Amino acid sequence: MYICDLKRMDDKIKTFATYGDTGNGGITRYSLAPEAIQAREEFTKRLKAIGAEITMDDMANMYATIPGSDPNAKRIVMASHVDSVKNGGNYDGILGVMTAMEVLETIVDQKIPHKHPITAMIWTNEEGSLYPPAMMSSGVVCGKFDKDTMLASKSVLDGKTTFGEALVASDCVGPEANRLNPNDYACMFELHVEQGPILETANKDIGVVTCVLGMVNYRIRTYGQADHAGTIPMKYRQDALYAAAQVLTYLHNELDKLDPALVYTTGEIKCHPCVHTVIPDFVDFSIDSRHEDPKVIEQVVNVIKNMPKEVAKCKVDYEKAWARDTVYFDKELVDLVKASADEAGISNQYINSGAGHDAQFVSEMIPTTMIFVPSKDGHSHCEPEFTSVEQCTNGASVMLNSVLKVDAK
Amino acid sequence: MYICDLKRMDDKIKTFATYGDTGNGGITRYSLAPEAIQAREEFTKRLKAIGAEITMDDMANMYATIPGSDPNAKRIVMASHVDSVKNGGNYDGILGVMTAMEVLETIVDQKIPHKHPITAMIWTNEEGSLYPPAMMSSGVVCGKFDKDTMLASKSVLDGKTTFGEALVASDCVGPEANRLNPNDYACMFELHVEQGPILETANKDIGVVTCVLGMVNYRIRTYGQADHAGTIPMKYRQDALYAAAQVLTYLHNELDKLDPALVYTTGEIKCHPCVHTVIPDFVDFSIDSRHEDPKVIEQVVNVIKNMPKEVAKCKVDYEKAWARDTVYFDKELVDLVKASADEAGISNQYINSGAGHDAQFVSEMIPTTMIFVPSKDGHSHCEPEFTSVEQCTNGASVMLNSVLKVDAK
Repeated sequence: MYICDLKRMDDKIKTFATYGDTGNGGITRYSLAPEAIQAREEFTKRLKAIGAEITMDDMANMYATIPGSDPNAKRIVMASHVDSVKNGGNYDGILGVMTAMEVLETIVDQKIPHKHPITAMIWTNEEGSLYPPAMMSSGVVCGKFDKDTMLASKSVLDGKTTFGEALVASDCVGPEANRLNPNDYACMFELHVEQGPILETANKDIGVVTCVLGMVNYRIRTYGQADHAGTIPMKYRQDALYAAAQVLTYLHNELDKLDPALVYTTGEIKCHPCVHTVIPDFVDFSIDSRHEDPKVIEQVVNVIKNMPKEVAKCKVDYEKAWARDTVYFDKELVDLVKASADEAGISNQYINSGAGHDAQFVSEMIPTTMIFVPSKDGHSHCEPEFTSVEQCTNGASVMLNSVLKVDAK
Repeated sequence: MYICDLKRMDDKIKTFATYGDTGNGGITRYSLAPEAIQAREEFTKRLKAIGAEITMDDMANMYATIPGSDPNAKRIVMASHVDSVKNGGNYDGILGVMTAMEVLETIVDQKIPHKHPITAMIWTNEEGSLYPPAMMSSGVVCGKFDKDTMLASKSVLDGKTTFGEALVASDCVGPEANRLNPNDYACMFELHVEQGPILETANKDIGVVTCVLGMVNYRIRTYGQADHAGTIPMKYRQDALYAAAQVLTYLHNELDKLDPALVYTTGEIKCHPCVHTVIPDFVDFSIDSRHEDPKVIEQVVNVIKNMPKEVAKCKVDYEKAWARDTVYFDKELVDLVKASADEAGISNQYINSGAGHDAQFVSEMIPTTMIFVPSKDGHSHCEPEFTSVEQCTNGASVMLNSVLKVDAK
């Protein structure tokens, strides 16, 4: 049983929180922006100091590797991202990188014997906040996204600068041959904040993640007749927003009858013409549903398909936007994480991930798993995001011992 | 009984429909845009041809006046507007101007004796589509709006050009002394399309307008907690859009219990952050309610004030945006319009106006009333807007005889 260093972890958290500091307790650190480059430089400086070799690949993913005793062993990699959403917090992504750094630092500091080379890694542009989509570089490396299409992705801020231009300007680019690949890498761990209230509510310090939930996204649309707010008696109206409010309520009521572990969100709504003096003629809203069991997802789809076709004299229809199946993490790695937490006496439970992470793409290439630590009040992607340094250090210790268990096999 | 000329009316309708023709049966003719200047030139050309004197005031309102036999009599004015909404129809506004032209042409053509000077008039920028607000120039002339504030109104298209700059560029500006005023003008008539289905449904050709409905506008707001769509179990959520859908439905249900002549519209909705993967934390929607009787408007306000203060774990509140009292038109003029329609054997009924018109401002300065003609299928502010040439000509004939009744008093 090895334990990571709380003081060193605390110092990293405080240091990285300065790169993109909003002044309100959070950060804005878009991928490859100056603040993200500062974070990469800090990563490089600290890991070079313990003798790690730094490499980069063609998507600016960064790898800091300490050697193992067996020259033929594959690398064990721990990875996450340093980029954030706008006005994000100090833990989403960066905590996984700081944890990976802490594991390397502890191994070197305590001279912990290990056979495999061990790598701390930064995935470029996980959030996709400035250059969509999310999980861009793991998508390219794992063959999910076309690289040229990604290079052409335009900044949502200026609508002009491409991700490819930002990549060149970043000076973080290496050869494609440096990419994470199944020949050189044995497995990947990603530690992340839960981004929900489950661990905190259950008073557990570690979430042993088993899967990333399958999901399905639909658009629901209602069609009315635009007319003047003052001139059309109520009985002649076809009000697409009134119809949409009823359809949205109907969907919530029906979906609440399904498995209580189902999560679904009607988060986006567009109304046309959206003028206070005009009866709306068109409304389009999103419904995002997530559950581990494809049978429950199928029930969601059936609820959507069986909606009334006409509500409040408005036609109602739906369109499937996209879907993904549940991604299960490697069972052996999941068991190692559970055993590491149990052996360290750190309270834990199995949990699934409702959010997407780089790990879900990587898991299709090499054995992969994730470790969650609690999010205070369940908040994430916002400035109040918080995980105590004790919980962060516990997460690092579980990661360290999981890595060592893999190494020992 | 005098009757206007159907062929001449038809020619005007077809001619004016070319100024701003969208190619889809409608027009886009923003105030003072080249298309609106073409319409003003056509107005000027045709009315100069019958001997009218053309004047303009400082807000580019245009007046075409034929003299009467009594040099001391005040002018009787018939007015509407030539500007339209984007992709509007061929009748809203312009029909009132064409009707005023037709009345002057009929009087001159048939040499109808009259004491008062009679004026056909164009109000500048009634729609406010390019330079808000609506009814801009009647508002300035009638002391409702501050002129300097209006001159500073910026184009909604480029966000830069001011109405004042457009006014100078239009070359349609005259002295402030030329404005419509109570010393020189006896009364005003405005003919307009109904913009609703009441006359068509009742199979009536004329609406004798008695008032512009009083109205009250509120904003309704719900406050939730933004969180990730995938990570928060349903029972912990505070979804502001789900709450808003319930509040909107509640308001519709409660308002439907009030007087059936009440019209109310929830036309505009804003959702934050409005992203399909985030639970909404804020929704703001509008509610616009109109009724002649202030007691019913008060009932509406009571429904809003008595809404639940919390729905689906979200705080709900409201804010009054604005209100106006019912504006009653001049009873004598209303009676003259009714008598004119009855004498001409043109089917008619009393009606109120749910929409705002220049006439409602003018009615506080001089005796004013309005005449409505049917809107096919109740449509307006859209390309299918239609009123048959027979109905348009009937409207002009009722206007002509109403003007002559005032003249004879």
